[in-house]
Amino acid sequence: MSDLKFRGYAVKDTNKWTEFDVVDFEPMGVRDDTVDIEVEFCGICGSDVHTLTGGWGAPHLPLVSGHEIAGTVRSVGAGVKEFKQGDRVIVGAQIDACGKCRQCQDDNENYCPKQVDTYNAEAWDGKITQGGYSTAVRAPQKFVFKVPDNVDLADAAPMACAGLTVYGPMHRFGVKKGTKMGVAGLGGLGHFAVLFGAALGAEVVVYTHQEDKVADAYKMGAADVVLTSEKDWDKKHSMSLNFLISTIDVSKAIPIPELASQLYVNGVLHLCAMPDDPIPPFQTQQLAANGCSISVNHVGSKVEAEAMLKLASEKNVKTWKEVIPMKDVGKGVQGVKNNEVRYRYVLKQDLA
Amino acid sequence: MSDLKFRGYAVKDTNKWTEFDVVDFEPMGVRDDTVDIEVEFCGICGSDVHTLTGGWGAPHLPLVSGHEIAGTVRSVGAGVKEFKQGDRVIVGAQIDACGKCRQCQDDNENYCPKQVDTYNAEAWDGKITQGGYSTAVRAPQKFVFKVPDNVDLADAAPMACAGLTVYGPMHRFGVKKGTKMGVAGLGGLGHFAVLFGAALGAEVVVYTHQEDKVADAYKMGAADVVLTSEKDWDKKHSMSLNFLISTIDVSKAIPIPELASQLYVNGVLHLCAMPDDPIPPFQTQQLAANGCSISVNHVGSKVEAEAMLKLASEKNVKTWKEVIPMKDVGKGVQGVKNNEVRYRYVLKQDLA
Repeated sequence: MSDLKFRGYAVKDTNKWTEFDVVDFEPMGVRDDTVDIEVEFCGICGSDVHTLTGGWGAPHLPLVSGHEIAGTVRSVGAGVKEFKQGDRVIVGAQIDACGKCRQCQDDNENYCPKQVDTYNAEAWDGKITQGGYSTAVRAPQKFVFKVPDNVDLADAAPMACAGLTVYGPMHRFGVKKGTKMGVAGLGGLGHFAVLFGAALGAEVVVYTHQEDKVADAYKMGAADVVLTSEKDWDKKHSMSLNFLISTIDVSKAIPIPELASQLYVNGVLHLCAMPDDPIPPFQTQQLAANGCSISVNHVGSKVEAEAMLKLASEKNVKTWKEVIPMKDVGKGVQGVKNNEVRYRYVLKQDLA
Repeated sequence: MSDLKFRGYAVKDTNKWTEFDVVDFEPMGVRDDTVDIEVEFCGICGSDVHTLTGGWGAPHLPLVSGHEIAGTVRSVGAGVKEFKQGDRVIVGAQIDACGKCRQCQDDNENYCPKQVDTYNAEAWDGKITQGGYSTAVRAPQKFVFKVPDNVDLADAAPMACAGLTVYGPMHRFGVKKGTKMGVAGLGGLGHFAVLFGAALGAEVVVYTHQEDKVADAYKMGAADVVLTSEKDWDKKHSMSLNFLISTIDVSKAIPIPELASQLYVNGVLHLCAMPDDPIPPFQTQQLAANGCSISVNHVGSKVEAEAMLKLASEKNVKTWKEVIPMKDVGKGVQGVKNNEVRYRYVLKQDLA
């Protein structure tokens, strides 16, 4: 046991979701497999905004959100072999699972029906989990990922959720050299999809409606950028992509038939984001020209997280981020909501 | 050139879609690669009803529909090596393609952008294609499939569309022994999915709301049948299927989230039918519990058609059908619309 204090920036009212107060909280109880981590950085995820505004339903209040957590291990449970004090680690959007079901046994723990979210969920002992806009988190070792020496903790923090959420499906689909991959929406998730896609050697085509992001997309490694505000934007790469990740987070802004039309036969349109509303209705006929699929995912598994961090280390992937003091979290969540961030806010510890 | 007459049962008004008159028609012009086929049987497909009623838009009238065609080759073009007079063959829903594009070159001719439907479409010479409720059809050899000796022509006819439409995706997904496969909706398509699934050695679970079909499903080879009219029908096989084919042809009757919930991690919900309306809107969150996909297809390729017919021959697959005289086609289409058919009407030639 360390002498870590658990304190964080909490929202107390979803109508005042940019107002944060510092509160003390009790983390999940210690187990043989838990790791206590001193938080150094925490990214701000779109999920935090969905949760704090009540878009995904009424949260437990007061709530400390944040699930792109990077820090240093301070103490470990009796059964922890994987980590030791001083290790540099990240924790993402999922913090626990049953460990026993078919999914947990075959490296699909991110689909365990008893999965526990990193904040706003009931932990194994009934406590409500609290996130990384805080001094410290306690996490079972299965959901803690070691950061390679040459990867900065501030870069690694947003990889824990935004990075893994796009890398997971890319890994399962088998993106590699020779894959023609699309990325629709160039925000926090989308920018990681471009970075990782390029790092894997794929030919990446970015779709954005924001002209001011075009130059950035090329710098991140895109082979081509399509401005969806232009007429006939869906013609140039029609029926040619193998895989297209949409990270567009507003339902009505997802042009399902047009995105699907970019895919070659049996290609996959993968929807990473989880908007507040249903996706626009479509007819099966509209997907029949190429027999494509629409797929979704829930973050990624530990196997995928470790593969992602290895790629980031080997290919020197750098997160495009703005580091701000943790006390400015209110401005940060507002900036995410307003789509002002380029491309991820990372909060730096100031409570310790 | 044979002395075949091209005459068929045609609808002249979508408001009178059960009234058929015998008309003469001109088929597509002869090419080096065309085959003239004397029609012996033609299945009635749900597509015929969608087209004749105007559900898929206003058709060219008068229209001879029918794209589950079985018959005997009477003559072949100068370049045809694959067929000779007297061969027993079938023709399905697609009758031509460009032969040159990437899709045509890699056995995805069913996704050629210049694909030509067997009826109600513009042929290479501008003629409107007419279907198999008729004495004869002319088809390029690429879209003619040879029927194995031990398969009856009346059984083979509905395989040309209903069979191939479900077998195609099963083939691409790799259904085999060890696959746990669902079939939702036990009509013409669904019954083939059960028959072929069982023939491939898969464990087939049928979902139907019709109690009077349960015994049939078991006889077709289902391992289990779930009555979707019962409470909590989606609990028993929750999160366990690898692949689920929905053949439900009415949009609002497709319970997307409940069907998706039957799938194990990364399973595929495949929508074979093409209802008149968009599928019910859903949230990506509703598919996130297992990270599944929703996919569609447009019939199947020749490679798949030949694999299907080989399977039918080797495993002695028998179509469940009601053979009726071709002149009763009006009662037939009404019976399909009313969901009275068990499980396919096959029209027997009476015009020749």
